[in-house]
Amino acid sequence: MPLVRISLSAGKPADYRRAIGDGIHQAMIETLAVPEHDRFQIITEHDAGGIIYDPGYLGIDRTDDIVLVQITLSAGRKPKQKRDFYARAAELLAHEPGLKPQDLFINLVEVVWENWSFGNGKSQYTE
Amino acid sequence: MPLVRISLSAGKPADYRRAIGDGIHQAMIETLAVPEHDRFQIITEHDAGGIIYDPGYLGIDRTDDIVLVQITLSAGRKPKQKRDFYARAAELLAHEPGLKPQDLFINLVEVVWENWSFGNGKSQYTE
Amino acid sequence: MPLVRISLSAGKPADYRRAIGDGIHQAMIETLAVPEHDRFQIITEHDAGGIIYDPGYLGIDRTDDIVLVQITLSAGRKPKQKRDFYARAAELLAHEPGLKPQDLFINLVEVVWENWSFGNGKSQYTE
Repeated sequence: MPLVRISLSAGKPADYRRAIGDGIHQAMIETLAVPEHDRFQIITEHDAGGIIYDPGYLGIDRTDDIVLVQITLSAGRKPKQKRDFYARAAELLAHEPGLKPQDLFINLVEVVWENWSFGNGKSQYTE
Repeated sequence: MPLVRISLSAGKPADYRRAIGDGIHQAMIETLAVPEHDRFQIITEHDAGGIIYDPGYLGIDRTDDIVLVQITLSAGRKPKQKRDFYARAAELLAHEPGLKPQDLFINLVEVVWENWSFGNGKSQYTE
Repeated sequence: MPLVRISLSAGKPADYRRAIGDGIHQAMIETLAVPEHDRFQIITEHDAGGIIYDPGYLGIDRTDDIVLVQITLSAGRKPKQKRDFYARAAELLAHEPGLKPQDLFINLVEVVWENWSFGNGKSQYTE
């Protein structure tokens, strides 16, 4: 169910962007109990000026490699699971494609379970 | 009030994208009590790799024609209305522009009524 | 913490888009108690047909200069603060870059404080 929006600067290879999506999804599987095949992601590239970020907020050194990840998912995950997710995502992306943990920004938006239709005009989670 | 984000693959004609927007809006009018003129939509095209989707999650056969629709709207719709919306949107889009119901993915995000300004720096729904 | 998505028509100068982002951020600092360095914005340009808006909903005269702003932020702001924000944002953007107040559409999406990671794989607001 998660709908994942990943925004980053233009100019990276397609493999790089794919690896970001892979790592985020894998971290969700491991920590948020997201099913393996429940993957829906929108990855967008942005030219200079399209992403504005503070390079030092909260003492974190960010660069133009910043990746902004916004995930809409069903409510129910506990704070500990969310913290585990942030940590695991940063770890996986540091390994592949080599994203600095400082450059991973994540925001979660929670909705009720009836707010999803995966196709066929049905509310699969409530029917 | 709904703010509708529609994401699909690049390469479709402008009329096709417009028809997707039309059908979603019409379904909202009919099932979610959205006023006819309350239409605000952002439609984005994505190159290969920009939309990552699972082709079979929950047993639904999706294709590259997948359309991801994320709608932010005020809270208050009942589950039955939401189910009616999913069904009607799939029906209308199957008719025009001919979208396979399997390829329609919808997510709703609900907010409180005071969270909208439609212009002029006012909170029209709470003033 | 706010994650700000700003959508407008393509064709404006970079300075114009930057000024939109500046004004929104300044209004958030003044009215929503957002820290000065807590700035994360995604600004996207859209070709004709990419933004569909009603030119008269609620009696407001909108033009193709419409700017759609969607802000995800932590819950806790009072209705009065939100109203002050809408008013101040419209005021600042009317001054610079000269946006008509009718063309400023704003939506807020609220989340809990644990739903943010600003980097390093941590949940900075809850650790």
